[in-house]
Amino acid sequence: MRRSDRLVCLTQLFLENPHTAVSLTDLAERLGAAKSSLSEDLAIVRAVFEQRGIGTFETLTGAAGGIRYIPGVSETFAVEFVRGLQKELAEADRILPGGFLFMSDILGRPDVLDAAGRLFAHRFAGAGAEAVLTVETKGIPLAVSTARYLGLPIVVVRRNQRVTEGSAVSLNYVSGSDRRIQTMSLSRRSLREGSRALIIDDFMKAGGTARALVELLAEFHGRVAGIGVFTATLEPEKKLVNDYVSLVDIGQVDEEGRRVEILFGTYFRKESFRKEG
Amino acid sequence: MRRSDRLVCLTQLFLENPHTAVSLTDLAERLGAAKSSLSEDLAIVRAVFEQRGIGTFETLTGAAGGIRYIPGVSETFAVEFVRGLQKELAEADRILPGGFLFMSDILGRPDVLDAAGRLFAHRFAGAGAEAVLTVETKGIPLAVSTARYLGLPIVVVRRNQRVTEGSAVSLNYVSGSDRRIQTMSLSRRSLREGSRALIIDDFMKAGGTARALVELLAEFHGRVAGIGVFTATLEPEKKLVNDYVSLVDIGQVDEEGRRVEILFGTYFRKESFRKEG
Repeated sequence: MRRSDRLVCLTQLFLENPHTAVSLTDLAERLGAAKSSLSEDLAIVRAVFEQRGIGTFETLTGAAGGIRYIPGVSETFAVEFVRGLQKELAEADRILPGGFLFMSDILGRPDVLDAAGRLFAHRFAGAGAEAVLTVETKGIPLAVSTARYLGLPIVVVRRNQRVTEGSAVSLNYVSGSDRRIQTMSLSRRSLREGSRALIIDDFMKAGGTARALVELLAEFHGRVAGIGVFTATLEPEKKLVNDYVSLVDIGQVDEEGRRVEILFGTYFRKESFRKEG
Repeated sequence: MRRSDRLVCLTQLFLENPHTAVSLTDLAERLGAAKSSLSEDLAIVRAVFEQRGIGTFETLTGAAGGIRYIPGVSETFAVEFVRGLQKELAEADRILPGGFLFMSDILGRPDVLDAAGRLFAHRFAGAGAEAVLTVETKGIPLAVSTARYLGLPIVVVRRNQRVTEGSAVSLNYVSGSDRRIQTMSLSRRSLREGSRALIIDDFMKAGGTARALVELLAEFHGRVAGIGVFTATLEPEKKLVNDYVSLVDIGQVDEEGRRVEILFGTYFRKESFRKEG
């Protein structure tokens, strides 16, 4: 195989296996290349990926040696993406009775899912998550996209217990925003005991659902690797969870005037945004 | 930019924008390359993609000219993937009371979602779908993955009407397998009138849910581009929909003996499998 062919193969292999360690010996064998040529190939791929904000590489030491691709996003990409959302979410006809925003169309779009997944995966790349946890329904596509970029499984918490889920752990909780009692249920077999999970959802108001997910995770002796939401409301300012990352924040919704205030989320708060550099 | 860098860029660009026409003029500009060099680059990428079963390219004629990447899968990949599923799904401890199979772990795994999405996208590549339609909950990750490989939005039908979905079209139907009355609801704004949609779900028994989705689609003056399910039961042989593609078929479930018969799905029925070549 020629260098040009190897570059195409390597690029495809890394992009389709994010966060997965690949041994150099294996690679050399698969591509029929000497390790020295392969190192040069890798240097080229790496340089282009890093320069274009596609991602970075982590070199693993040890017997065989290996390399792992960590998807990334550039600051410019993140800002442009959220600026686009800001414009779309502020459209007057998205305001539904009760001051809710219609977002289902946006949450189904491949470009949005892809970019949001990338942003979350980038932000939580070093959090040591072993699974991405979400609760049905609207957070699932975001969780799938995030999990894809982290190379992790997704685990879906159900609102009702299902016969097809086997034995499950259930939890009743009071929704933070409307004070209704809600139920969550997670099948015993869906999540390994003691897992570290990244929680992803589409929306956070008071944070009651996120907190319930944290508690449910504790029932599995698991830990939270992070909480990422697509949108969060500015009010109430104090959420029921300590720490979360939002892409977009929703301020005042003026149902009469059909205006809504859409802001950059906590993802962009200076301190943490800089950290990503 | 050198050829080697351009190859990495092109590979990334195509992989991350399946089914999207890219104009050669745009490409040449973005990569700062002459059109003639670019044509040679594209020939290299194309050859590797086709040889490795990553996908094919479609050249579009017209003023500017363009090219589109169509993700594919090799026969070997499809067979190996389903052979792996066959083994896993046949594990004795997957059998739940009532003869159901526990599959939620498998349906959350990134390798499975990726491969299943690829297979469906490959099979329905030419069906002219404009959206991927599914009903909550377990089919959503499969729909997301399929939609990603087709470059399409997903549309999620809900079991209940929600305030965050705005006005919706609802449908009551009798579930084919357990004869219970169920409800489906799709928000008016989620699907453009007259859309052609690909239906994706995790499981089909009698086909009642799929048929209800077809009917719901008709309420939007839409048409069905195809129906793809991860698993289908062999019984009842006659389904409530005429045509569907399953990856895996479930035969006899022996709850006492803890044995289940798992077969290759209709995806692999000779005639249609060959067609893909």
